[in-house]
Amino acid sequence: MAEKSRIGVTGLAVMGANLARNMARRGFPVAVHNRTTSKTQEFMKDFGDEGPFTGSESLQEFVDALETPRTIVVMVKAGPPVDAVIDELAPLLDKGDIIIDAGNSHFPDTDRRAAYCQERGLRFMGVGVSGGEEGALLGPSIMPGGDPEAYAEVEEILTAIAAVVDDTPCCTHVGPGGAGHYVKMVHNGIEYADIQLIAEAYDLLTHVAGLSAPEIGKIFEQWNTGDLESFLIEITGKVLAKTDEKTGAPLVDVIVDQAEQKGTGRWTAIDALDLGVPLTGITEAVFARTLSSLRDERRAASTTLAGPTPGSGSNRDDLVEDIRQALYASKVVAYAQGFAQMRAASQQNDWNLDLGAMATIWRGGCIIRAQFLNRIRDAYAEHPDLDNLLMVPYFTQAVADAQDAWRRVVATATAQGVAIPAFSSSLSYYDGYRRERGPANLIQGLRDFFGAHTYRRTDSDGTFHTRWAQDGSEVSTG
Amino acid sequence: MAEKSRIGVTGLAVMGANLARNMARRGFPVAVHNRTTSKTQEFMKDFGDEGPFTGSESLQEFVDALETPRTIVVMVKAGPPVDAVIDELAPLLDKGDIIIDAGNSHFPDTDRRAAYCQERGLRFMGVGVSGGEEGALLGPSIMPGGDPEAYAEVEEILTAIAAVVDDTPCCTHVGPGGAGHYVKMVHNGIEYADIQLIAEAYDLLTHVAGLSAPEIGKIFEQWNTGDLESFLIEITGKVLAKTDEKTGAPLVDVIVDQAEQKGTGRWTAIDALDLGVPLTGITEAVFARTLSSLRDERRAASTTLAGPTPGSGSNRDDLVEDIRQALYASKVVAYAQGFAQMRAASQQNDWNLDLGAMATIWRGGCIIRAQFLNRIRDAYAEHPDLDNLLMVPYFTQAVADAQDAWRRVVATATAQGVAIPAFSSSLSYYDGYRRERGPANLIQGLRDFFGAHTYRRTDSDGTFHTRWAQDGSEVSTG
Repeated sequence: MAEKSRIGVTGLAVMGANLARNMARRGFPVAVHNRTTSKTQEFMKDFGDEGPFTGSESLQEFVDALETPRTIVVMVKAGPPVDAVIDELAPLLDKGDIIIDAGNSHFPDTDRRAAYCQERGLRFMGVGVSGGEEGALLGPSIMPGGDPEAYAEVEEILTAIAAVVDDTPCCTHVGPGGAGHYVKMVHNGIEYADIQLIAEAYDLLTHVAGLSAPEIGKIFEQWNTGDLESFLIEITGKVLAKTDEKTGAPLVDVIVDQAEQKGTGRWTAIDALDLGVPLTGITEAVFARTLSSLRDERRAASTTLAGPTPGSGSNRDDLVEDIRQALYASKVVAYAQGFAQMRAASQQNDWNLDLGAMATIWRGGCIIRAQFLNRIRDAYAEHPDLDNLLMVPYFTQAVADAQDAWRRVVATATAQGVAIPAFSSSLSYYDGYRRERGPANLIQGLRDFFGAHTYRRTDSDGTFHTRWAQDGSEVSTG
Repeated sequence: MAEKSRIGVTGLAVMGANLARNMARRGFPVAVHNRTTSKTQEFMKDFGDEGPFTGSESLQEFVDALETPRTIVVMVKAGPPVDAVIDELAPLLDKGDIIIDAGNSHFPDTDRRAAYCQERGLRFMGVGVSGGEEGALLGPSIMPGGDPEAYAEVEEILTAIAAVVDDTPCCTHVGPGGAGHYVKMVHNGIEYADIQLIAEAYDLLTHVAGLSAPEIGKIFEQWNTGDLESFLIEITGKVLAKTDEKTGAPLVDVIVDQAEQKGTGRWTAIDALDLGVPLTGITEAVFARTLSSLRDERRAASTTLAGPTPGSGSNRDDLVEDIRQALYASKVVAYAQGFAQMRAASQQNDWNLDLGAMATIWRGGCIIRAQFLNRIRDAYAEHPDLDNLLMVPYFTQAVADAQDAWRRVVATATAQGVAIPAFSSSLSYYDGYRRERGPANLIQGLRDFFGAHTYRRTDSDGTFHTRWAQDGSEVSTG
């Protein structure tokens, strides 16, 4: 038997394979395994000479190939397959061995699995990994959650394979239990909002400003040199610039307009509803994708439902700049909401999340990597207990500067019939958040009228009910 | 022992007590029971002479007081108390006895309880009851779900106590299992949207039109004579007209602006996310309530975050009429979304819901009762397989007529800094739904770029991937 491997990876689809290759390239001996043996053989044939790999044809052989205490990364499809692998592994492992689920698991599953492993004397970590295939190979953003002592043992490897920004690896221990997968979920939710905002900007630039895909691609390329600088803005420029080989048209013009989703955006929205955190940007982004999927209904509606036909009515350069500012302000709101959600989850679960550290590890490797995140890191460095990102001077000022343009864009899109669910819901959130007194007093009055749900008064403590159907007098109820 | 009772009610808080009184007033002998015996005694003292009641001090006595097969209405707080009552009742009952949960239970719990009771030879029904205290006493809207044979046995009672509109009782068998509670949940979700839209109209009338609460009350009173005629518009007029005894100010002006919620709106939004149905109106209404609860944060933000100060800029009468039309059009969208959600749930669960019948039984007794529902009933009578209410000529035309005003209101609110999450998200849904081709093609392009998620083409079947990071060529992937 050869020398034992430092770490094992089971599940050699592209993400698992690339994580294993990333580890081996950094010098860590890696045992690899896949349920279908041919996949392991293929991996060894294609990449076996890249580094110190040991290919294992059975799970027993895989486990035997590892140094103890063992560290095993599971990279299989989220859901029941993760449980299946844990169930198969557990009897082969020894007390103190570490199982790392590096897939996109739902955080309550991770909490459950951590408890399950703990009962069996095993240590479990749920680790969010963002960056797609390329990130997995070259340096992803890594969000490890679970047992801190287990983390201490694998920190060397995880930080070595992570992306690095300003000499700081994009990896830090997030918190206990499902905290790592939770943060990854919110990361993906924010990604939904970012992408929806880009789609709305693209839609306005196409239909209101009358620009072609390559022209819009150039605008995004230019936007990527300013406040908006980020991976998503960069690749939007590239995608829009791409010519379809087959038709000679811009590729986006031949792509079907139905967006798919794999569930993390929906989880984020559902979690916000459960927590009671207003998360309108991400949720509207999720709903926009579901609306896009109703293609047959939309086709029928397009010839039936009335509305204006969009077309430029204002100076094109001014409009483009207004859209840039609207995109930036809406993005600030989406991040403010996502970070407020993480804060609420941290409080509810006693996770003690370091939100500035989350911004820090998202600066590189992951899909939402952006300059912008430095500002968020700075905000939490100065104000660790911040309620809302909008309240730090940098973001307060950024939105103050952008809001006139933002309002013009929403008004123009509204007048011209272009759907802007994320732009407008973000603005409504902003306008609702800055209201010392909103209209919910009427809601409470109505609820008291029809359901005797009581209300509070601005001038006295306690709760009150008006006997609406009787003599109209007010009674104190608690 | 006296004559046996036709039906029993356990749980004598105001909803249960009023349902029992309603039944007795219709001539049905009712056995009543409450866990706390003093509550039963109190009920008998207060209402015992209203009809043929039998007060029972123990559950055994209660069960013995009933004709067999027994019919027992459980009216306790949703959640574990319902399970506790079922567990206590089950051993005392005989095969074929019927347990009716008439509370606001979450529909998956109802499905679970139906299975649990079936295993024990009992029949279970989950029955949605809307109308608040007054409806329970005088005639609620009743949404019974569960075993159709059990329903046949209780139909006489339920239809007798229900509200009646045009000689039709507001009660019909909804479907199997949790279908009744599901429909009640969506009813409540729509109620959230209706109320939020009213709150936004009130906010605009206050801050943009500069009107006082009693002035706005008169406007709602007038609106209640037209298309908007409904219970909620009617009571909005009354709530706004109410003078506070203590201060002499309008009562709403001294009510704290934090809206509470009991969960059914949140359930509706979460279900829509699970089903993949865009439900923006109800969801924004839920988030608006959670935002209203952040009162301390809003107070701090009000002096920090920049924005315009609202004030009338247009003719007040025109503005009021525009707001009325915006309210109506947004309401149509909220109902279109809620009915599309019920349609999707019906398909997913094989419930075979008759959506026209749902509109019919909501015309009276319940919180969202409205003239408007006749139009929805008519729409499904003519088009039982309707995808979306917006597509029937009546609603197509109604929104076509209102849309210019709706767009002006959204633009005005946006310019003046008044949050209108439900008005604007409903309009974005409308504008998104009537788009033959939306911007989701770009979303698919981006997803393919960073995650190799593939896309479909408008000119060929199958899925494709562009090798963005390699030679940029397109490959067919399935």
